Amino acid sequence: MRPPLPKQTLQERLHEIIFEADTFWGKFFDVALLLLILMSIAVVMLESITDVALHYGVWLKTLEWVFTILFTIEYFARIYAVKRPIHYIYSFFGIVDLLAILPTYIGLLTTGGHALTVIRALRLVRVFRIFKLGRYLGEGRVLIVALIASRFKITVFLLTVLSLSIILGTLMYLIEGSESGFTSIPRSIYWSIVTLTTVGYGDIAPQTSFGQFVASLIMILGYGIIAVPTGIVSVELANAHANVTTKACPNCSREGHDQDAKFCKYCGEEL
Amino acid sequence: MRPPLPKQTLQERLHEIIFEADTFWGKFFDVALLLLILMSIAVVMLESITDVALHYGVWLKTLEWVFTILFTIEYFARIYAVKRPIHYIYSFFGIVDLLAILPTYIGLLTTGGHALTVIRALRLVRVFRIFKLGRYLGEGRVLIVALIASRFKITVFLLTVLSLSIILGTLMYLIEGSESGFTSIPRSIYWSIVTLTTVGYGDIAPQTSFGQFVASLIMILGYGIIAVPTGIVSVELANAHANVTTKACPNCSREGHDQDAKFCKYCGEEL
Amino acid sequence: MRPPLPKQTLQERLHEIIFEADTFWGKFFDVALLLLILMSIAVVMLESITDVALHYGVWLKTLEWVFTILFTIEYFARIYAVKRPIHYIYSFFGIVDLLAILPTYIGLLTTGGHALTVIRALRLVRVFRIFKLGRYLGEGRVLIVALIASRFKITVFLLTVLSLSIILGTLMYLIEGSESGFTSIPRSIYWSIVTLTTVGYGDIAPQTSFGQFVASLIMILGYGIIAVPTGIVSVELANAHANVTTKACPNCSREGHDQDAKFCKYCGEEL
Amino acid sequence: MRPPLPKQTLQERLHEIIFEADTFWGKFFDVALLLLILMSIAVVMLESITDVALHYGVWLKTLEWVFTILFTIEYFARIYAVKRPIHYIYSFFGIVDLLAILPTYIGLLTTGGHALTVIRALRLVRVFRIFKLGRYLGEGRVLIVALIASRFKITVFLLTVLSLSIILGTLMYLIEGSESGFTSIPRSIYWSIVTLTTVGYGDIAPQTSFGQFVASLIMILGYGIIAVPTGIVSVELANAHANVTTKACPNCSREGHDQDAKFCKYCGEEL
Repeated sequence: MRPPLPKQTLQERLHEIIFEADTFWGKFFDVALLLLILMSIAVVMLESITDVALHYGVWLKTLEWVFTILFTIEYFARIYAVKRPIHYIYSFFGIVDLLAILPTYIGLLTTGGHALTVIRALRLVRVFRIFKLGRYLGEGRVLIVALIASRFKITVFLLTVLSLSIILGTLMYLIEGSESGFTSIPRSIYWSIVTLTTVGYGDIAPQTSFGQFVASLIMILGYGIIAVPTGIVSVELANAHANVTTKACPNCSREGHDQDAKFCKYCGEEL
Repeated sequence: MRPPLPKQTLQERLHEIIFEADTFWGKFFDVALLLLILMSIAVVMLESITDVALHYGVWLKTLEWVFTILFTIEYFARIYAVKRPIHYIYSFFGIVDLLAILPTYIGLLTTGGHALTVIRALRLVRVFRIFKLGRYLGEGRVLIVALIASRFKITVFLLTVLSLSIILGTLMYLIEGSESGFTSIPRSIYWSIVTLTTVGYGDIAPQTSFGQFVASLIMILGYGIIAVPTGIVSVELANAHANVTTKACPNCSREGHDQDAKFCKYCGEEL
Repeated sequence: MRPPLPKQTLQERLHEIIFEADTFWGKFFDVALLLLILMSIAVVMLESITDVALHYGVWLKTLEWVFTILFTIEYFARIYAVKRPIHYIYSFFGIVDLLAILPTYIGLLTTGGHALTVIRALRLVRVFRIFKLGRYLGEGRVLIVALIASRFKITVFLLTVLSLSIILGTLMYLIEGSESGFTSIPRSIYWSIVTLTTVGYGDIAPQTSFGQFVASLIMILGYGIIAVPTGIVSVELANAHANVTTKACPNCSREGHDQDAKFCKYCGEEL
Repeated sequence: MRPPLPKQTLQERLHEIIFEADTFWGKFFDVALLLLILMSIAVVMLESITDVALHYGVWLKTLEWVFTILFTIEYFARIYAVKRPIHYIYSFFGIVDLLAILPTYIGLLTTGGHALTVIRALRLVRVFRIFKLGRYLGEGRVLIVALIASRFKITVFLLTVLSLSIILGTLMYLIEGSESGFTSIPRSIYWSIVTLTTVGYGDIAPQTSFGQFVASLIMILGYGIIAVPTGIVSVELANAHANVTTKACPNCSREGHDQDAKFCKYCGEEL
């Protein structure tokens, strides 16, 4: 919360406010943006409820435009604030920021609309900028480091679960036949995933004694192997000790710099 | 179980009995209170069953009043026993103790009644005073310490789960349409939470092939990410080694003092 | 698999065969007993299927009597083999062994029958004598040691889950009302346990928007707190390193002696 | 990606390409085989959907034969490439490779067909050869080592879960009776497995108050004991540190050799 140094240019100040969270205005901007995003998501949701859309459609449309214009201003401010805009525009969050405003403008031209809703919901991804806020940063990083470290083990595990589901689903298709809802192999595989993951909708369920016996074995198997990813993540989490700051490079806008870093480790720019 | 020292005043004795669990009468009081609370909760439950309420309504009402009067006496005894009653009254358990008796008195004045039931159920929170009983104290503390230590990681995790649910719910709303029960985005989000957490009611379930395919991916995702909070808590639990007593400060009634503490670490009062 | 020493009395040999698993005949006895128990359980199950009971009722009755008589002989052999029969008779497995044979004899006198079935199913508990077989012993011990070490933490955790279920169930009873199946507080608590534990039958499910919102929070809560018992057991398992033999004391028939123990640590009898 | 040495015989080159993944062609072969397997599985699935089978039956049959012939060529190439074909033929993957091609040829002779489908789905097991690809090898090995190390503890655990299911299922059969779907003990056991593993279809659910009370206890129990396998695997994973290569012995085609191994540890052949 130190006062901004007088020597900063407008570009430098904007960068500090928009991309960092170490100053007062940087935090204020993040919190305000978070609220805007959440409200715009709420509008998208409310529009999908038939009753609400009928009565308050005009209000929701207006709010949608207010949010879109604010996000557009923010988008161009971000481009102005970084030294190398191309890097920002093609970064993950750069694309998400663009996707947050495009659907409303496209909605003016076409009448398809429906598919645009799900793109608008992607605005929520921008909430993850909140991880730059204070304490949450380090924690999020530790989780991500642990998940990245265990990505191969988790992939192997999920492949095994998928293979088991396919083989067991095919088996149940032969055992149960189409009377109990196991009408095709893909549908039986859907059932075996529902069962192995212990979700258990009950829309498809074995009716024959032998089918129920095999289903019981599958459930106990699923109960046993749920232990595997947990063990993987536990071990990796115990190993992951991240120590990073909220600083972003003013040049290439990449993050993850150590607390005592003076220069960007990606492009050498002074932080 | 040492005999109470003759020099204690009534206030000091009451404090030892009501707030601590190291003496015989302190333990006796806790166990008796526990039974009273459980019985009063049973009465609240029985009142909600239409058949029982019709036949034994008068008995249940009478019992309710007996419990309320006993709890009222206990509440004022607690206020008398601590040196600075204000601290107790505004403490977490002070408010819970008040909420345990208020609904019955308010029930005399109004006829709303219904909403008071849930407040009465909060009496159960008072059961957690039992954690002061012997061995359970340390264990409860270790759990709480581990949960507090992992609260940021768990928050980040739950936020991620929530965001995933919202984005996947919106996606399924577009895929399935309203025939299969995905009538609005909030309802689809409800479904995706039911699925991601592996609860799986089956009141809403995908009917189209593509919907079932996406649902399968969501389930496997949910099965994989359940490992994350488990890993978090495992690591924190391994770190948490609490060493605390059942002593409560006679002045400010706060707990959590070390075994060798001679003075309250919050207000400096001798323990 | 050393040959039995010639100096052993009949009682000592019987003890070695029946209670221990370090010799050839000790292992043979355990495996044979295991098969008998499993077959007798199968008979109990088959009797409960209406179709099977109608066609093969006589065969099943006969088999039931064969097993009962064999178990009776085994029971008296056990009493004869230990030096202090009283200790065996009142031990956990002594009572289970008696309960395994009593129901069939009682069935001769009364016609109640039904409740005896569940007692007969308790025979399955005797299968856990298999843990005395070779490698499985140590593993089972490690699990039990870890569970015993974490019993206080697990109790605190389950009490918390139970309290949460009661408070959340009461809340949902008020929110949903009786149209959606939340007809009484105990039934709502049943629902909240079904949801918190991620079982999710779907026989009772919230219908109102607000009910579904609260239910979503409960599910995410349940998803988060499932991490707690897992963390507890992981930590305790890492601590538990048991090192015990299959030897049982010929005098008091208690187990859990160290590999290098020469005398029973409970009664001092030579092993 | 070093160029193949000129001194290699055809047999040695084939072995390097088919059985190993350290050279460019070895990797290429594995990826191509993976795609073929996945496509052949897709054909098996599509055949089971009535609509698709009606319209594209001929195409699917043709594709099936293309895949079968390719797999047959591969099978004989494998036999030719290893020094001791008998070892390969009777190895686990040798049998799986044979089972991948047999069903189509048998389908020419008989018209049974149905049971052959599930054998064809076993082709998927061959996907696990992908684990030889680069990074995934070590990860898969670590998981397998951890699972093998914990197999006794997991067996003890699953036996306990099974016993609990049988005893609790019998109990619920007595409590609920046949009105609520608990028509026989095996069916009640099926229900108790569905509940204990937190799958919860809801096709069978307790209707009586006492039944729901007991079911609640079973659910909380299942919620608590799911912690056990997780703890087991976590501890074993922390212990498992595998360090193996993708090399397979050219003589006996067994894998798992250390990075610095010069000779096959099973048959002494130079690697």
